[in-house]
Amino acid sequence: MYSKVAIVGAGNVAWHLFQAFADVGLEVNQWLSRSTPSEHFSSVSLSPQSIESLDSDADLVFLAVADDAVAQVSARIPKNFKGLVVHTSGAVSMDKLADHLRYGVFYPLQTFSKGNSVDYSQVPVFIEANHKPDAQNLAELGKKVFSKERVTFLNSEKRKNLHVAAVFVCNFVNHMYTLGAEIMEAGDMDFDLLRPLIEETAQKIQHQHPFNAQTGPARRGDQKVINAHLDFLNSWNEEEDIYRLVTESIIRRNGK
Amino acid sequence: MYSKVAIVGAGNVAWHLFQAFADVGLEVNQWLSRSTPSEHFSSVSLSPQSIESLDSDADLVFLAVADDAVAQVSARIPKNFKGLVVHTSGAVSMDKLADHLRYGVFYPLQTFSKGNSVDYSQVPVFIEANHKPDAQNLAELGKKVFSKERVTFLNSEKRKNLHVAAVFVCNFVNHMYTLGAEIMEAGDMDFDLLRPLIEETAQKIQHQHPFNAQTGPARRGDQKVINAHLDFLNSWNEEEDIYRLVTESIIRRNGK
Repeated sequence: MYSKVAIVGAGNVAWHLFQAFADVGLEVNQWLSRSTPSEHFSSVSLSPQSIESLDSDADLVFLAVADDAVAQVSARIPKNFKGLVVHTSGAVSMDKLADHLRYGVFYPLQTFSKGNSVDYSQVPVFIEANHKPDAQNLAELGKKVFSKERVTFLNSEKRKNLHVAAVFVCNFVNHMYTLGAEIMEAGDMDFDLLRPLIEETAQKIQHQHPFNAQTGPARRGDQKVINAHLDFLNSWNEEEDIYRLVTESIIRRNGK
Repeated sequence: MYSKVAIVGAGNVAWHLFQAFADVGLEVNQWLSRSTPSEHFSSVSLSPQSIESLDSDADLVFLAVADDAVAQVSARIPKNFKGLVVHTSGAVSMDKLADHLRYGVFYPLQTFSKGNSVDYSQVPVFIEANHKPDAQNLAELGKKVFSKERVTFLNSEKRKNLHVAAVFVCNFVNHMYTLGAEIMEAGDMDFDLLRPLIEETAQKIQHQHPFNAQTGPARRGDQKVINAHLDFLNSWNEEEDIYRLVTESIIRRNGK
């Protein structure tokens, strides 16, 4: 498929790429990173080199760097480089790599923290490339390293929808967990008591549309309970505003 | 423990109480309901009677009715009733039952939809009663029917914290799923592509505090991506406001 693969970066995505490749027995041949990698990278047997050391005959380079570093790092790869240059970001347009001969996007959709074990066979991957054969090959690689069923060709425009949606269902959801934890802690209760509810809430929508899974005072239009909750949150900061706004947003969809 | 149990109501909680009791082989002796029960209740062998038919020698009555119906239904039980009267609501103060000799709260914390199967052995229960022996007995029952490890005595004041926190981590989380689904559908993409991310986001906090699990542009303080997302959401309704508010709330906690 690809015989010489390089990974650029020492962040969450780079770490998980190394893990995912190792899990399916695929070799990574070069590691390029400016920053000093965290202890988690001790499992990687390569030593990080500067981007200028990129082998000219590498056939695939992953730019697994911060979104706003993609363009800078890309500019340090020679323009006559013959391999395929891809970034791994949900938020960066493919055009940022258009100085190269062959370029693309290989975006695995997951909440990656270093050292956190992930079932890679369930991770969807979104592919884009300026040449069709490269897109096909990236898709093959995606199926091998990540989810067999969920490799999707997606242009940069639609990737915007995907990325914003992911922020809602992952980062914003996690922030709701954080706010829940703070409210529990203010009542001297352990966040642990909420964990079964959190798990069931996520499980419930694995087989139905979330709109149909909704319960609670806003869905019931129970203004008495809503008012009592707003009273309770009166002394809190943004929690009251978030409660009000999300409740209104749920109510607006009631009866649809 | 209790030899004659009655359940009042034909909603989500009533249905799950029947299921949970049946699962551990405990009998429910009477079913009281004004409204015509949904088809899901065909698994219940009892016929619904009016609340006035409550056996005077019942020793435990669950008022599994809508929050704002607790007081009215309670008023229809004779004041000299000798059994224990409990409601199952997170939002209603125990005092609403104070006309009775023995009263309390038995609040199983879960997102209950009728017909949805739930692992009851994982469901936490929160107990309150005006007499200590009743609280003890309810706790014993809670351990038998729901989670062995997560039966907690909780007064009505703290139950407010719990209930508001539950709205954040369940109803509001589910609404983030709904908004994510809408954003995907606007890009002709299937919500299914988000399901692995949703599952991992919930799994991640089963063993760590959600604050430490956060990732994404707001946690990184990546204003460029945030602005691009706000531009994208410019033509949407409340999504832009929710995005802005939740992002600010995450950023406010960065570096803490």
